[in-house]
Amino acid sequence: MRARHLIPPWLKHYQPKWLVGDSVAALLASMTLIPQALAYAALAGLPPYLGLYAGLLPLVGYALFGSSSVLSVGPVAVLALMTASALTPIATQGSAEYISGAILLALLSGVILLLMGFIGLGSLSNLLSLPVVDGFVSGAAILIMVGQIAPLLGIKSEGHTALEILVSTLSNSPMTDPEAALMGLIALTSLIAARLGLPFLLRKMGVNPPRAKLLSRLAPMLIVLISVLLTAIFHWEKELPVVGVIPAGLPDLTVPTIRLSMVYQLLLPALIIALLGFVESLSVAHSIALRRGEKINADAELRGLGTSNILSAFSGGFSVTGSFARTAVNDEAGAKSPLSGIIAAALIALVLLFATKVFTELPICVLAATIIVAAANLIDPQALIHHWRYDHTDGLAMGGTFLGVLLFGVEAGIGLGVGLSFATLIWRTSRPHIAVVGRVPGTEQFRNVLRHTVKTLPDILFLRIDENLFFSNISAVEDRLLVEVKRHPNLHDLVLILSSVNRIDSTAIERLQQINRDLLKRNICLHLAEVKGPVLDRLGRSKLLQELSGRVFLSSYIAELALRQHNIDDDNQAPESTSPADPA
Amino acid sequence: MRARHLIPPWLKHYQPKWLVGDSVAALLASMTLIPQALAYAALAGLPPYLGLYAGLLPLVGYALFGSSSVLSVGPVAVLALMTASALTPIATQGSAEYISGAILLALLSGVILLLMGFIGLGSLSNLLSLPVVDGFVSGAAILIMVGQIAPLLGIKSEGHTALEILVSTLSNSPMTDPEAALMGLIALTSLIAARLGLPFLLRKMGVNPPRAKLLSRLAPMLIVLISVLLTAIFHWEKELPVVGVIPAGLPDLTVPTIRLSMVYQLLLPALIIALLGFVESLSVAHSIALRRGEKINADAELRGLGTSNILSAFSGGFSVTGSFARTAVNDEAGAKSPLSGIIAAALIALVLLFATKVFTELPICVLAATIIVAAANLIDPQALIHHWRYDHTDGLAMGGTFLGVLLFGVEAGIGLGVGLSFATLIWRTSRPHIAVVGRVPGTEQFRNVLRHTVKTLPDILFLRIDENLFFSNISAVEDRLLVEVKRHPNLHDLVLILSSVNRIDSTAIERLQQINRDLLKRNICLHLAEVKGPVLDRLGRSKLLQELSGRVFLSSYIAELALRQHNIDDDNQAPESTSPADPA
Repeated sequence: MRARHLIPPWLKHYQPKWLVGDSVAALLASMTLIPQALAYAALAGLPPYLGLYAGLLPLVGYALFGSSSVLSVGPVAVLALMTASALTPIATQGSAEYISGAILLALLSGVILLLMGFIGLGSLSNLLSLPVVDGFVSGAAILIMVGQIAPLLGIKSEGHTALEILVSTLSNSPMTDPEAALMGLIALTSLIAARLGLPFLLRKMGVNPPRAKLLSRLAPMLIVLISVLLTAIFHWEKELPVVGVIPAGLPDLTVPTIRLSMVYQLLLPALIIALLGFVESLSVAHSIALRRGEKINADAELRGLGTSNILSAFSGGFSVTGSFARTAVNDEAGAKSPLSGIIAAALIALVLLFATKVFTELPICVLAATIIVAAANLIDPQALIHHWRYDHTDGLAMGGTFLGVLLFGVEAGIGLGVGLSFATLIWRTSRPHIAVVGRVPGTEQFRNVLRHTVKTLPDILFLRIDENLFFSNISAVEDRLLVEVKRHPNLHDLVLILSSVNRIDSTAIERLQQINRDLLKRNICLHLAEVKGPVLDRLGRSKLLQELSGRVFLSSYIAELALRQHNIDDDNQAPESTSPADPA
Repeated sequence: MRARHLIPPWLKHYQPKWLVGDSVAALLASMTLIPQALAYAALAGLPPYLGLYAGLLPLVGYALFGSSSVLSVGPVAVLALMTASALTPIATQGSAEYISGAILLALLSGVILLLMGFIGLGSLSNLLSLPVVDGFVSGAAILIMVGQIAPLLGIKSEGHTALEILVSTLSNSPMTDPEAALMGLIALTSLIAARLGLPFLLRKMGVNPPRAKLLSRLAPMLIVLISVLLTAIFHWEKELPVVGVIPAGLPDLTVPTIRLSMVYQLLLPALIIALLGFVESLSVAHSIALRRGEKINADAELRGLGTSNILSAFSGGFSVTGSFARTAVNDEAGAKSPLSGIIAAALIALVLLFATKVFTELPICVLAATIIVAAANLIDPQALIHHWRYDHTDGLAMGGTFLGVLLFGVEAGIGLGVGLSFATLIWRTSRPHIAVVGRVPGTEQFRNVLRHTVKTLPDILFLRIDENLFFSNISAVEDRLLVEVKRHPNLHDLVLILSSVNRIDSTAIERLQQINRDLLKRNICLHLAEVKGPVLDRLGRSKLLQELSGRVFLSSYIAELALRQHNIDDDNQAPESTSPADPA
């Protein structure tokens, strides 16, 4: 029974005819993965071949536990950047301590993700709003591009923020290593040309558009192979920094070294990497699943990504998550099931066993060029404009995160973003929308006097409060009530319509009691209408209902009928006026 | 014109017959003020006579600019505690640097309050919710009481938090100064007896209850005078710490020394003192104004308190605000106008000019006893129970602030409290209330199926979302939709009632677009009903309205009519069921 549970559902229903699609997709995806894996390991400050280790077992781990059939897990640019950012203050890039730190970081994120998955904390991803994630990714992409200018030109740079890195890069002479600079720029130009021109060219040659786009994604691998060939032929490895010797064979499976002092230092970065990786991967999985009519399970995703990261750590790799680019290749190339991920892992294993020598003479500057082009693709100015247009406060949270990443670094940037999201949430809640409403003639419906032609009465005022009542906004409600009471000198009854009020906290309830007493002094009765069930239950625990000078009505219409009748009985006059004319 | 504006409105309409009430109230209020002023200065770590300086000009400042006719401004226990907490890390208690620090703190808070008053930032007080303020005051009161045990017993103690002080107090032998301990305990017992027994005794003697309560408030002054008399007669000043020489005469008006490094260190404490003093004073002023039928203006209060604090600083005093106890005395003794405050200030001036010698031999342990009794009065267990009962999250914010003050000190406590209030705000917002609703038969009203007997349809589901839609809660909405869709297998139309939704952020709108597409795959049309004007405007800027598979209806009733007609046309069947029977 237990053993059967370990077999993933897709394997039980595997159809042999899927094998072709899965194999072709695996081949293309691993062709995309190899240059990216080498490049992102370099970006993380690690020996490039460790990227291949991170692209091996994690694929298998996700295939067994994840819920998307085509998500391609492995090293990605943003997590590589965050790994470098977390480890650089602790150890020297490339040192043994640095490598064991990267492994520990993957292990910690993996454990965090797995725990979240088992507790069912998938909803924690809600801490990050879409504008914050978009702002972060665009900011991180620019930070990555700025950081790769130096390796592209074969010079050195240092610094934590985009500005520091840029100044440091510019202050170094670009002509220390003219061979590297030349090769780097040629690789960059070719990659840009391939990305922009190749699909167009292929379509001209009669290849259908999706296939043209797919083939153009193989350009980085082609350029990598050409550069390796040229370097080997002309022995440029003496003048250019190259990847160097890659140990042949599969990585050893070892339990990572766990030093408690390091765990303590890396716990927060690991948490951020786990959350961000999860949110990124979930959005990739969601968008692909939508097209394929599949259902993504957030908790299964957590378990899949958790297992992948733990397997990455045990096989000497670093933090991994779902990659947008490689998932797209896998999907477009016709993958049918997670088996494609397992086949891709097998192909990488073959490379590690028999073909590591190929990448020994791969120039670092070519890897930098592939990183720059990949990062440029992550910048999404349309999303930025869209958020700003839809809501300026969302735009501000996004802009703040974007600038935060560039000015203060990735971790401070994401912290600033989350802070800004919450600040805007509180800011919005503290400025409640309050509408004077009147009845739409001939109906039982009440609507805003500023937007509809409705009937109002001089002695009965209907105010609809469009926000929950909290300590942070009850003063604003109080002020508005005062203004409206002054504008309606003949007021006899004030009806607060609470149809949009879902919660009233204890500060607000005390102030409402005071408002009730204040209004009574002015001979104005306070009534409530359309109070929601849970709110009414809560009100029953306060003194407001006992002290209320007026009544609680089921609906505004019932309130109007009852109060008009009552006032007519009182003084036989209740003239009507029709808005938008102001009765005051 | 300008000169006339400087004359406060109450002075222009002053009626001579008010003079008796104002004078009697001023006499009683100053009798209450003198022991408190000396005691709170000691609590702040300052020479006790500085409390009298802080009870002089601030009264005049508030009378000229404040908006309450009876608020009594001067030193209060909580601000004295906060002054000590802000200055102790910077300078030695009682040193010249410490005193100039206290003066600077009053000046900074005064300037902050005045600026807030002129910009109209009275609403900043909304940062502090009632549970946080109540939890803070109760916690601070216990901290004050714990801190006064040592001076009461004539021993030394140190520490920042309640626990540290308690441990330090207990570790000192209580018999270092048996005379002080004895006198302190006798004074404490007398004060407690006076507070609990005197009103009862006076009522027995035929004094009416309010007057009995008022007279019992003079007990501290009486006990102070008796202790001075006894000390003078028996020359106990050799064995007991006493107040010591008080410089005779009014304080010099001097511009406070402003050292920029100190300004920087004291800015945050000054801001907290300003905000907390303002909130405290405003709640006192509000509760008294309500009884007297007056109107309190938050911005005038800011200007009044700001001027008071600045005048306190210029006359060598420390931070002041409205005192609950003395305001009550002033009110109960029959004060008619702010003139009572000015007369009280004149009486304090007379004491400073001619009677400082009286207080020279006042034992410090007696001041400690008056502080303990006054602080005990600030603890409000009823409020604590009330907040907890009304809403457990409010109770948690309050309990957190209370414990924060005791465990980490006053500033950390208030910070924790504000943090907790916002955290609960976000927590509540992230758990939206969603109700399946149906039409109340014979009306146009839709109500929760769990609370009312309503009609539902198997193919049309009405869901009312009772919360604004934000990045933090859209997942919860998504999950609930999925559950409901599964529970209604014959579903054809899903109507989201947005009557309670006032804002939709850009994360939520993107997810709604996805939900719309997901539902369409299952052949379910998504409709919106009762969308508020501002929300509809905002939706117009997104793609949701273009992509929406269904329609936007003005009301749920119209939606039901239109969709039933449509579905009947489709398949000539739409059986009705009546809740609470589950249609699934």
